Amino acid sequence: MRFGTVRVGQTRMAAEERDGRWYALDIPPGTALEAVLATGLGAATATRRLDGAAPVRPLRPGKIVAIGLNYLDHIREAGMDEPERPLMFAKFPSSVIGPGEPIVIDGTLTARVDWEVELAAVIGAPIRHASPAEALAGVAGYTVANDVSARDLQFADGQWTRGKSLDTFCPLGPVIVSPDELGDPQALRLWTRVNGETVQDSSTAEMLFGVGELLAFCSRAFTLEPGDVVLTGTPWGCGEFMTPRRSLRPGDTVETGVEGIGTLTNPVEGAAR
Amino acid sequence: MRFGTVRVGQTRMAAEERDGRWYALDIPPGTALEAVLATGLGAATATRRLDGAAPVRPLRPGKIVAIGLNYLDHIREAGMDEPERPLMFAKFPSSVIGPGEPIVIDGTLTARVDWEVELAAVIGAPIRHASPAEALAGVAGYTVANDVSARDLQFADGQWTRGKSLDTFCPLGPVIVSPDELGDPQALRLWTRVNGETVQDSSTAEMLFGVGELLAFCSRAFTLEPGDVVLTGTPWGCGEFMTPRRSLRPGDTVETGVEGIGTLTNPVEGAAR
Repeated sequence: MRFGTVRVGQTRMAAEERDGRWYALDIPPGTALEAVLATGLGAATATRRLDGAAPVRPLRPGKIVAIGLNYLDHIREAGMDEPERPLMFAKFPSSVIGPGEPIVIDGTLTARVDWEVELAAVIGAPIRHASPAEALAGVAGYTVANDVSARDLQFADGQWTRGKSLDTFCPLGPVIVSPDELGDPQALRLWTRVNGETVQDSSTAEMLFGVGELLAFCSRAFTLEPGDVVLTGTPWGCGEFMTPRRSLRPGDTVETGVEGIGTLTNPVEGAAR
Repeated sequence: MRFGTVRVGQTRMAAEERDGRWYALDIPPGTALEAVLATGLGAATATRRLDGAAPVRPLRPGKIVAIGLNYLDHIREAGMDEPERPLMFAKFPSSVIGPGEPIVIDGTLTARVDWEVELAAVIGAPIRHASPAEALAGVAGYTVANDVSARDLQFADGQWTRGKSLDTFCPLGPVIVSPDELGDPQALRLWTRVNGETVQDSSTAEMLFGVGELLAFCSRAFTLEPGDVVLTGTPWGCGEFMTPRRSLRPGDTVETGVEGIGTLTNPVEGAAR
């Protein structure tokens, strides 16, 4: 099943995608995806086709758990050692935008804005003290995330929260794909293109800790709840580690994609101040 | 106005406290405090008295922004330099508990659990690109927070998110006090008692960055939204910096308090596994 949130006229609703077309679910009109996740997607089946539906931000996460340095090729480019355990940080839910929405750069705050394509797990059932297999059973589906990062703030602060949580710095979408439809989450190509040029192109097979291990690790510390989103790290190809260094600029277009899910496209704008 | 969330029998509802008694607000039955905050507290007035009402977790924050090293006396005890700007980190909302609920220590994860009393600002209106005065105008009220911290995880991880976000590690309450009733937020005594012994006893006058400055700083990076909670740092007296070091143990009782708000009491338990 491929599902998400669409806008039809002025209304936003949870919906199912089939062959590029969107269909309403047999749930009360106007029900948000967050509510569907909490009660279970199993009962929701597609009904009438929605004309003129466009995917928007799929959900507002309860929390966003993010993982750093989790791809072997990215660890090598950063010149770092492999972490002994997953390196966890947070992005605030207020940073989430959807497909087509602009990543807004405030030039008075940051001059080094970077892209990071990531496979994102959307939680569908509470996960606590779980094994990797048990944790994977709590995943409602997967989507694409761009873990946009203000490198200057991230490194100057030491704590990464602020540099990772600027408004618009967490594009998600365009669709959430259920685990049974997506297949093995450790065998997916993922990529980033900036203005059409490929800058990241790797595979989730490069993950140091797999999705199940990451979720199990989280669940030993706290409860993963329906509507939470876990970002699983980014591969080789960030602008920060290129020579010369590259950063996103107003006017750029960033496409992040994961095989079997789709491509998330966001323009980059300067702050209007 | 003093307000919060109470349980009456099996029902939880937003309510107002006067002279230690709780009163229902003239809002639809069962309305959560989060919804009241988003629509404004001004219109809510107390109606009938609630018999047998007990305060519980006042709200489920949309996000918890926390600030480290923000009290001059705490900076001295930690042997650190004054930060040039507020040091921001995150606690996940899944860590929040209310008055009387146990702080649960999983001995397989952490052996160094510390207390941190903090003045917590509860956001009532969106705050973005605000001056300190504008930011303070968006505060719905203040409550007490205990920023419980697994020091071993916090320092081993480098990123503080995990050690600060274990389930039950963010007691909030027992009541939220509106700014007009509380008075100057920079002139409040705050304290922690462990098993009746005072371990923290300071004043919000010791803050390096005042509440308005902290909120304005946050608002330059992202939107503070109704229902968000900002923790403003802890003063001198954490167990981690005592000689010998002290930590919370199952069987302890922790009381954290702020003048004009009240005392938040939480027992400490071991994880039942």
